[in-house]
Amino acid sequence: MLPFAGELSVRKLVTASQVRVGFIGLGIMGLPMAANLLRSGFPVTVWNRSRPGIEAALASGATEAASPRAVARSSDVLITIVTDSPDVEAVLFGPDGAADGLRPGAVFIDMSTISPAVTRDLAGRLAQRGVAMLDAPVSGGEGGARSGTLAIMVGGEREVVERARPLFEALGKTIVHVGPVGAGQTVKLCNQVAGAIHLLAMSECLVLAQKAGVDPAKMLEAVSSGAAASWMLSNLAPRVLDRDFAPGFMIRLQQKDLRLALAAAQELELALPGTALVHQLFHALEADGAQDEGTQALVRTIEAMAGVEVRRGG
Amino acid sequence: MLPFAGELSVRKLVTASQVRVGFIGLGIMGLPMAANLLRSGFPVTVWNRSRPGIEAALASGATEAASPRAVARSSDVLITIVTDSPDVEAVLFGPDGAADGLRPGAVFIDMSTISPAVTRDLAGRLAQRGVAMLDAPVSGGEGGARSGTLAIMVGGEREVVERARPLFEALGKTIVHVGPVGAGQTVKLCNQVAGAIHLLAMSECLVLAQKAGVDPAKMLEAVSSGAAASWMLSNLAPRVLDRDFAPGFMIRLQQKDLRLALAAAQELELALPGTALVHQLFHALEADGAQDEGTQALVRTIEAMAGVEVRRGG
Amino acid sequence: MLPFAGELSVRKLVTASQVRVGFIGLGIMGLPMAANLLRSGFPVTVWNRSRPGIEAALASGATEAASPRAVARSSDVLITIVTDSPDVEAVLFGPDGAADGLRPGAVFIDMSTISPAVTRDLAGRLAQRGVAMLDAPVSGGEGGARSGTLAIMVGGEREVVERARPLFEALGKTIVHVGPVGAGQTVKLCNQVAGAIHLLAMSECLVLAQKAGVDPAKMLEAVSSGAAASWMLSNLAPRVLDRDFAPGFMIRLQQKDLRLALAAAQELELALPGTALVHQLFHALEADGAQDEGTQALVRTIEAMAGVEVRRGG
Amino acid sequence: MLPFAGELSVRKLVTASQVRVGFIGLGIMGLPMAANLLRSGFPVTVWNRSRPGIEAALASGATEAASPRAVARSSDVLITIVTDSPDVEAVLFGPDGAADGLRPGAVFIDMSTISPAVTRDLAGRLAQRGVAMLDAPVSGGEGGARSGTLAIMVGGEREVVERARPLFEALGKTIVHVGPVGAGQTVKLCNQVAGAIHLLAMSECLVLAQKAGVDPAKMLEAVSSGAAASWMLSNLAPRVLDRDFAPGFMIRLQQKDLRLALAAAQELELALPGTALVHQLFHALEADGAQDEGTQALVRTIEAMAGVEVRRGG
Repeated sequence: MLPFAGELSVRKLVTASQVRVGFIGLGIMGLPMAANLLRSGFPVTVWNRSRPGIEAALASGATEAASPRAVARSSDVLITIVTDSPDVEAVLFGPDGAADGLRPGAVFIDMSTISPAVTRDLAGRLAQRGVAMLDAPVSGGEGGARSGTLAIMVGGEREVVERARPLFEALGKTIVHVGPVGAGQTVKLCNQVAGAIHLLAMSECLVLAQKAGVDPAKMLEAVSSGAAASWMLSNLAPRVLDRDFAPGFMIRLQQKDLRLALAAAQELELALPGTALVHQLFHALEADGAQDEGTQALVRTIEAMAGVEVRRGG
Repeated sequence: MLPFAGELSVRKLVTASQVRVGFIGLGIMGLPMAANLLRSGFPVTVWNRSRPGIEAALASGATEAASPRAVARSSDVLITIVTDSPDVEAVLFGPDGAADGLRPGAVFIDMSTISPAVTRDLAGRLAQRGVAMLDAPVSGGEGGARSGTLAIMVGGEREVVERARPLFEALGKTIVHVGPVGAGQTVKLCNQVAGAIHLLAMSECLVLAQKAGVDPAKMLEAVSSGAAASWMLSNLAPRVLDRDFAPGFMIRLQQKDLRLALAAAQELELALPGTALVHQLFHALEADGAQDEGTQALVRTIEAMAGVEVRRGG
Repeated sequence: MLPFAGELSVRKLVTASQVRVGFIGLGIMGLPMAANLLRSGFPVTVWNRSRPGIEAALASGATEAASPRAVARSSDVLITIVTDSPDVEAVLFGPDGAADGLRPGAVFIDMSTISPAVTRDLAGRLAQRGVAMLDAPVSGGEGGARSGTLAIMVGGEREVVERARPLFEALGKTIVHVGPVGAGQTVKLCNQVAGAIHLLAMSECLVLAQKAGVDPAKMLEAVSSGAAASWMLSNLAPRVLDRDFAPGFMIRLQQKDLRLALAAAQELELALPGTALVHQLFHALEADGAQDEGTQALVRTIEAMAGVEVRRGG
Repeated sequence: MLPFAGELSVRKLVTASQVRVGFIGLGIMGLPMAANLLRSGFPVTVWNRSRPGIEAALASGATEAASPRAVARSSDVLITIVTDSPDVEAVLFGPDGAADGLRPGAVFIDMSTISPAVTRDLAGRLAQRGVAMLDAPVSGGEGGARSGTLAIMVGGEREVVERARPLFEALGKTIVHVGPVGAGQTVKLCNQVAGAIHLLAMSECLVLAQKAGVDPAKMLEAVSSGAAASWMLSNLAPRVLDRDFAPGFMIRLQQKDLRLALAAAQELELALPGTALVHQLFHALEADGAQDEGTQALVRTIEAMAGVEVRRGG
């Protein structure tokens, strides 16, 4: 008896162990997420492009399968969290792809951050096979993945979202159903657009304080709880004061997400001048070899143009 | 016995009624601030360019004086909160100006948002007369002024700041001494720079959601408590959803503050490309006659370029 | 005896009729270019996705072939001028693609504006078949195509460029060999970057004059021959004064080219903030349905933000 | 008999020696301009803030006067070419100012680049004394000043412009009457706006070519005569290839002019996002101590963000 078959009511979904979960993508985010699913009692079958992720998942109690298709065959719900649109496409429709293994009635949940348009296309192709798709990108970083406190932005049919809710609850704290398939990715891009521009705000106010001879730590103390408050100012600006540019969220991934946002804006015929400016300024950091540093390093582009360095004490 | 004379220790400043406060500038912010000082027991003498502010202050228990100079003569501490640098200059050094009325040992506190450079210049001229100056611009709006919960960013000599602390505590909740004279204004400009850029972030993510067919209210629900969180997103974006563009903080004043920030950046030889972009985009609203609307109206510039209108429900 | 075989010296290429030319892409640019080749004595075999272009070429004396492969089979030199990278890829490597028809020793010349990276990739794949590739995008528009006065920016091996020179001379006036394969496309993108930013310059100075109450025609008369001179100001600004927004060069194609430029900048890790700004501002025109209007319509985005319309007479 | 009195027809203005010219501001531009007036037969009385300019003018045949007022007293037409708005105000209305020396019927011509609004204000104050004013800023640089080939953009009453034409013809080649008083300055700002944005276009296309591995000299050869042509690309880009950053036009003055343009845009409620971006990017050069270098140095800001240096040969 398959717990996700259409005829079963949501209420019957009482036992996590009845739902067999497939999980593909055991990176910084995926590995702790798979572990949280196991901890919540879901049996999890995994596949990953490289060995170390698999070994770590096996150590947490997962079962290994030989290919995306093999994972799909033994799963009621298949979750992916990989890098970009082509990666999700390859997992589903590449050689030994998962699409051929998913049975009608199964649910495919992509938790990567990819193109909303590609998402809708994939959902359409899966629907022809009787497979429902949710896009459920996350926010909250490695910390949120470990502690199971991610924010999850879910796109898809309401009924499917409800069926998947127990899994989401094992992974995150804020679970918002934002609209039909693709809407989750759109909201994630909104999140990235706002966050990226907030990094520019942070950079400009830090460098302004520093170059004006004011201790940027004092500036932060005065402004970060008022109308200029932002998560970036509270969480990343202090790291700038300590010249700590470790990620956090890597510039390489930030830029991928801004590319997706700007590509969506292009399809939608929508001017995003602030997003475009930040995307260009990040190129200066890429040119400097900082792809794997944290996004707070954006401040260095503004610093370089000002000839100063932001430091605690001013 | 003058309570602010140099030889008196801070500790002696026990009784508010011993400190005679002069207050110039009885507008939206100044009037409730003067009332809070009266409520805390300070005797307050006032002057204002127009009658209505004076009448309201008299009703709260203030005393009227005939000119800035007359206010200064009867005050130990003189507070101004007016619009821009030339207004402060006129109050101090114009005809019947306050500078001629301030006795040596008095303290002048400017709570307007004006140029840091002009602030330092005024402080220098007052120092020659034995008058100490603090710059203490505020954040928190009319609401904060009424409830006495303003954030106050204070620049000046530590000892003078401590002497003035009882007054600040009658007016605000967060009082941060950020550096020497002028530093308060610099920090206020940092606050305005960050806030203005956050408005652009808000505008771009709202319009992206709307034009992509996602309910912007759902988007806000999903993103406004995570890494993209900002005061603007939490407080002003919901007003955009309701098409409520009442101020809040008027575009006219926002633009004045961005002009001050960009002028400071020019003196400091500092590129603020995000601030400059937002300042230009606000010009489109000014051209549309929206000077007296709230700053959240920035979204209309992005909407106009996209041909959509952000609305609850998408 | 094949005229383009390696052992033949350039000098032997005396008779145009010895070189059989294949031509794919009979649009606004391609059709008059094919006609110019015929006029110069080259025998031309054509293929096009739609009939009208073919009929017109036949009327000029071309021969029709049934597929890209068939064109390639009967050609010593194959020329393409189509819209974008995927179009060139489809012509070469799609079903019945030209690559299978080109014999070793043949030359493939792509005169479309496409990605430099895709160009290098295609050249590599063709080299494995013994086919040399040149990228030779053009500037000068429909007028230049008709009159045979195009500017042609050629990338590829010097020797191959020299062999193809007689064809280029039938098509254009300025023929510059700018570097190895892909360099032609890079230079074309430089051309588009500069031109697009010049359109922003034109737009801002026209609207500044208009809104300041100065006749923009007088402004142009005064500035367009000095240090602010540009082709755009001399050629497109007068059309703005007449509210003539017919293409010229369509916004749709301008945006495609800016996308290519920004994608190249991304690969190169290079910040192009001016290009990115113009690309976003053009989105406002796309949102307004102006994709097929001329690029001079960019002025309407600046006008809309200013609430004025540029007109002769001010 | 005063040659500029209203009752005299233009035709009677046959002899240059009848018109006594006062000239204030003997800098890089003013000195050769005064010399050209002398060469054309006008008697010229001069004043300057510093000695060297005066000595050089005396050597060319000018007469010295002791103050702006003294120059004005002995002149039918008074010309100024100084740095900024306050300098013109000081010359006219400062101590020993020229306004007190100008007789009714005299003409005041300001050839500096200053604020259009200040220009209109000065014209109004002079009109009350019966003195007509023209604003006649110039383009063409030191070279144009020496060779008498400046472009002159003239604002003012038509009749006054005609009376002054013989003087303009001694100084420039393109003399355009662009509108009423202040219009000359507005047009000059349009010129500066377009030119500054063209410098950004130049910088972006040069760095794109360089970083893509294409010889920027080849790129210039291919693009600078087509639709991307500009005076900047033809005249300043070659200097970049030679790493020659000598002025030409100093960054310090360019920034002053962009400040004037952005201040005018602010008064007019007009968004100039391209101008604002370039103004900010120039701040990076000011921070680097490059104020007195030529404006072509803007390329170094784009280079710094890309980690490359544009050089002939690529």
